[in-house]
Amino acid sequence: MPSYIAPTKDMQFVLHDVLKASTQDISGYDEIDRDFTGAVLEEAGRMASEVLHPLNVVGDREGCVLENGVVRTPTGFKAAFDQVRDGGWTALDCDTEYGGQGLPYLMHTAVGEILSSSNMAFNMYQGLTHGAYSAIHAHGTDAQKQKWLPKLTTCEWTGTMNLTEPHCGTDLGLMRTKAEPHDDGSYKITGQKIFISAGDHDMADNIVHLVLAKIAGGPEGIKGVSLFIVPKIMVDDDGNLGALNDVSVGKIEEKMGIHGNSTCVMNYDGATGYLLGEAHKGMRAMFTMMNEARLGVGLQGYAQAEIAYQNALAYALDRLQGRDVTGVKNPDGPADPLIVHPDIRRNLMDQKSFVEGARAFVFWGAMMIDRAHRNEDKDADGLISLLTPVIKGFLTDKGYEMATNAQQVYGGHGYIEEWGMSQFVRDARIAQIYEGANGVQALDLVGRKLALDGGKHVMAFFDMVKTFCKDNAEDETLKAGFLEPLKAASKDLQAAGMYFMQQGMKNPNAALSGSYDFMHLFGHVCLGLMWARMAQAAGSKLGEAGADRDFLDAKIATGRYYMARQLPATGMHLARIQTGSETVMALEPTAF
Amino acid sequence: MPSYIAPTKDMQFVLHDVLKASTQDISGYDEIDRDFTGAVLEEAGRMASEVLHPLNVVGDREGCVLENGVVRTPTGFKAAFDQVRDGGWTALDCDTEYGGQGLPYLMHTAVGEILSSSNMAFNMYQGLTHGAYSAIHAHGTDAQKQKWLPKLTTCEWTGTMNLTEPHCGTDLGLMRTKAEPHDDGSYKITGQKIFISAGDHDMADNIVHLVLAKIAGGPEGIKGVSLFIVPKIMVDDDGNLGALNDVSVGKIEEKMGIHGNSTCVMNYDGATGYLLGEAHKGMRAMFTMMNEARLGVGLQGYAQAEIAYQNALAYALDRLQGRDVTGVKNPDGPADPLIVHPDIRRNLMDQKSFVEGARAFVFWGAMMIDRAHRNEDKDADGLISLLTPVIKGFLTDKGYEMATNAQQVYGGHGYIEEWGMSQFVRDARIAQIYEGANGVQALDLVGRKLALDGGKHVMAFFDMVKTFCKDNAEDETLKAGFLEPLKAASKDLQAAGMYFMQQGMKNPNAALSGSYDFMHLFGHVCLGLMWARMAQAAGSKLGEAGADRDFLDAKIATGRYYMARQLPATGMHLARIQTGSETVMALEPTAF
Repeated sequence: MPSYIAPTKDMQFVLHDVLKASTQDISGYDEIDRDFTGAVLEEAGRMASEVLHPLNVVGDREGCVLENGVVRTPTGFKAAFDQVRDGGWTALDCDTEYGGQGLPYLMHTAVGEILSSSNMAFNMYQGLTHGAYSAIHAHGTDAQKQKWLPKLTTCEWTGTMNLTEPHCGTDLGLMRTKAEPHDDGSYKITGQKIFISAGDHDMADNIVHLVLAKIAGGPEGIKGVSLFIVPKIMVDDDGNLGALNDVSVGKIEEKMGIHGNSTCVMNYDGATGYLLGEAHKGMRAMFTMMNEARLGVGLQGYAQAEIAYQNALAYALDRLQGRDVTGVKNPDGPADPLIVHPDIRRNLMDQKSFVEGARAFVFWGAMMIDRAHRNEDKDADGLISLLTPVIKGFLTDKGYEMATNAQQVYGGHGYIEEWGMSQFVRDARIAQIYEGANGVQALDLVGRKLALDGGKHVMAFFDMVKTFCKDNAEDETLKAGFLEPLKAASKDLQAAGMYFMQQGMKNPNAALSGSYDFMHLFGHVCLGLMWARMAQAAGSKLGEAGADRDFLDAKIATGRYYMARQLPATGMHLARIQTGSETVMALEPTAF
Repeated sequence: MPSYIAPTKDMQFVLHDVLKASTQDISGYDEIDRDFTGAVLEEAGRMASEVLHPLNVVGDREGCVLENGVVRTPTGFKAAFDQVRDGGWTALDCDTEYGGQGLPYLMHTAVGEILSSSNMAFNMYQGLTHGAYSAIHAHGTDAQKQKWLPKLTTCEWTGTMNLTEPHCGTDLGLMRTKAEPHDDGSYKITGQKIFISAGDHDMADNIVHLVLAKIAGGPEGIKGVSLFIVPKIMVDDDGNLGALNDVSVGKIEEKMGIHGNSTCVMNYDGATGYLLGEAHKGMRAMFTMMNEARLGVGLQGYAQAEIAYQNALAYALDRLQGRDVTGVKNPDGPADPLIVHPDIRRNLMDQKSFVEGARAFVFWGAMMIDRAHRNEDKDADGLISLLTPVIKGFLTDKGYEMATNAQQVYGGHGYIEEWGMSQFVRDARIAQIYEGANGVQALDLVGRKLALDGGKHVMAFFDMVKTFCKDNAEDETLKAGFLEPLKAASKDLQAAGMYFMQQGMKNPNAALSGSYDFMHLFGHVCLGLMWARMAQAAGSKLGEAGADRDFLDAKIATGRYYMARQLPATGMHLARIQTGSETVMALEPTAF
């Protein structure tokens, strides 16, 4: 059976030694000092290890069951959800006006990693609720906020997002769900939505569905889409629950993973809904939540890699098989532990260097979101908008790859469900698909984000890398294996960007043919930058009295591994990109 | 629901236009002319589409069930197995002396792709039987051959391979299963074996287990391991079935995939076994089958990618979503098909160029096995021994990756079991693990095969590439996008080999730290060579009267894609390799 221990030491290192969170000039950041975040993360970690993680395999095996129109969650989920709710874990960064604790989004993110690693499917119930909370908080009227937010903050009611229909996912302009106005200002919602995570369950008193639909007579296509609040159970003006709304679960989907989360087909049969935000501006309302939601999915990618890595490492230290070719390491045993073998070491280092780099990347991204929202910083908003598809696409692709590699350490046992490694792979897989499939992320990056505000933000990113290298040119730690690889990788990224610009208008397919490689190239540069920053922080801490030398040395060595072994991928991605669209588009569809 | 159509045209192209099989000076190859192989492959394809593939999802959903000590296979499996047996499909390359058809292994391989693509779990029952057949054929006494082979040839009895024990897989020297001699020359076998594919089932009259065990008093470790024939039901000298042997199924493992195949824990409680081959030379007996078995697993890797690709392509042609940025392609529809989008095209081309290249590689490998066995050609034997870990490791890694990419084309539907794409991924996953996990393949390649016969075979491989490039230096097709990338990739491979040689004795970890990258680098060069050969063949056929221009042009274009988009990976692998063991081994096990 797998286990999980929250990597709080690594998290604290990122929060305080690398990002220096509590000294940032971001509103509210002075609260999150080292002691405070340490206490919160330890407590979250305890709950994750003791309560949530043991239910991970239960959720996978039992799944959710639809009985008499109502979804039953796996054994133990309800009691655990009560515990999460009662502990205030769902309200960390919610507005104090609606019962939240008003902490930074960064804090929500750090805790989110722990909850997601320990039980991804379970954590989605509150994850979706947080999304619904954010949408109503950003776009609701005062009355709507008063009515819905307090219960969403506490997860007494949970939320969902209803976008996809059977015939449209990415291309939501094809949507058929319709909204017809009632005389009282509400709407009658009719249509079918699919892939609705947490669509129904037995852990909350009500479910608040956010549903995209087209108001009859509105503009064609994507410009005619509006967003509605559609409760499972009607709520009166005093907040009392009333009759059931005309919403029902068509079925629960059988999925490859995240079995503990109910993925529902939802039928809206003339259900009562309330317009959220402006009519026909539904997509804009969704987009304001997108950076957060996609960062949350990127987090899921590396969070699954983290728990998979923890268990692969434990197995590699424990399992005796073969002998170290350079000399026996365990003379009293029948064989040496797996970890003596260089290829096992390579595999573990790939996982470790990815997960730690990804964590720094996501925490940094969360800090940018706080800076954008709390300080209304447009530059931070632009930069995180640029990096969001990289966080989502690159980290989920690599997260799945690393979970697969962790499974590989187990040999045949990795393929047996009893050992738990398969679940990490199967669960991680969804993160590459939902919240915009990774190909769509790459399209968003190259087709929209690169040129955003005249290319200002990508230039700012390059400047940041350049400035970092310049400012730290004499750093002894960074001189050995960090600065040169980072500069080379950044140069590859710039060359790719330049190639897209040159092709740009005359051949959009040349840029789009390289979009996926560009997303990965960008991801490597970001992780390279994160590793350089971590190494710099570790190097400077090494000089302090009482420094944890083993921890800091390991951090630097792990970074050096990433720079030496992972960053060479940038040259490959650039070479592919520079071949343009010629070979990609050479075959007519009929010639495949 | 997914579907499958055997790619017989592509197969015929490889067999006859590229490999020119029927004109090879290999004993028995004159029989397999274009008409003959065409008829056989079409018939196999019909059976695969109509009988085996519809049972693929049935096998996945129902799995195998252990009831009262006996394994029940999924609905329809037994009837289908009868059909396969009655059609003579299990006997294609078996010795005519024992009821086989005596066709080349190449023919068995081509048919094997079809059977494996259409239903991997099902095809394993006869795949394991074929392995047992080969072991007894190679190492059995005449009496043993007469007794066991005819029934294994027809699959009236099936076979298994029993190597792994709970505490040892790769390191079989730790084995505990013991064999004690009886007075009559047979042995008493006692121990537990795990991960036994096709360990028990209801589709054959008897099961012939090949079991590795240690004869009491023999040498320590791997040198004391012997191989035994242990039937499920005792067989008398006249071939009549008698009493049950002391063999039982402990349980069926719950796995990530290949649910249609029963993976059993087998308990041998003093079962009667017969020594196969020499005492204490059991590993040698297993090794003689290894090239075939591992080529078969490499085949499984790309065969799953093939069926996943077929279905991804169908979906990309059918699903309407978004518009072509260069101009609407489907003006009468609400959107254009997915295939208009460059990133979808990139994904499909990755899959297509891999699968077709892999097929050529495996068929070429099968031809080498025939040359080695039928012509007793030592050079062919050496070359296929060298390439076997590449075929197994590279093709299964890529097969899984490509099946995952095919699943990605489906977006959210790819994650839903109903659509069938998840099964291809889950089934493909095992091929990276069994028959020697891919890390072990890389170790075998770098640690043993490179230096085999003084490095003669790797030199022969380089010569082959060089000669090909020289002989075709003026080929118009190859000049455009094939020769230069192939030379560059081959140069990277040579540089990596040189690096290993230089490090060699003084630092074995430097070579072993790069072994996995080397396996992939080698794989890319092999597929590059295959694509160059296919392009050369297609190019020269283009000049023939009545040539199928569309097919041949597509072949060349697909090859060009591989050379431009996949071969740049060799530079990345070389760069990683050349960093040696320093960063890989930097952390002490306790510092992870």
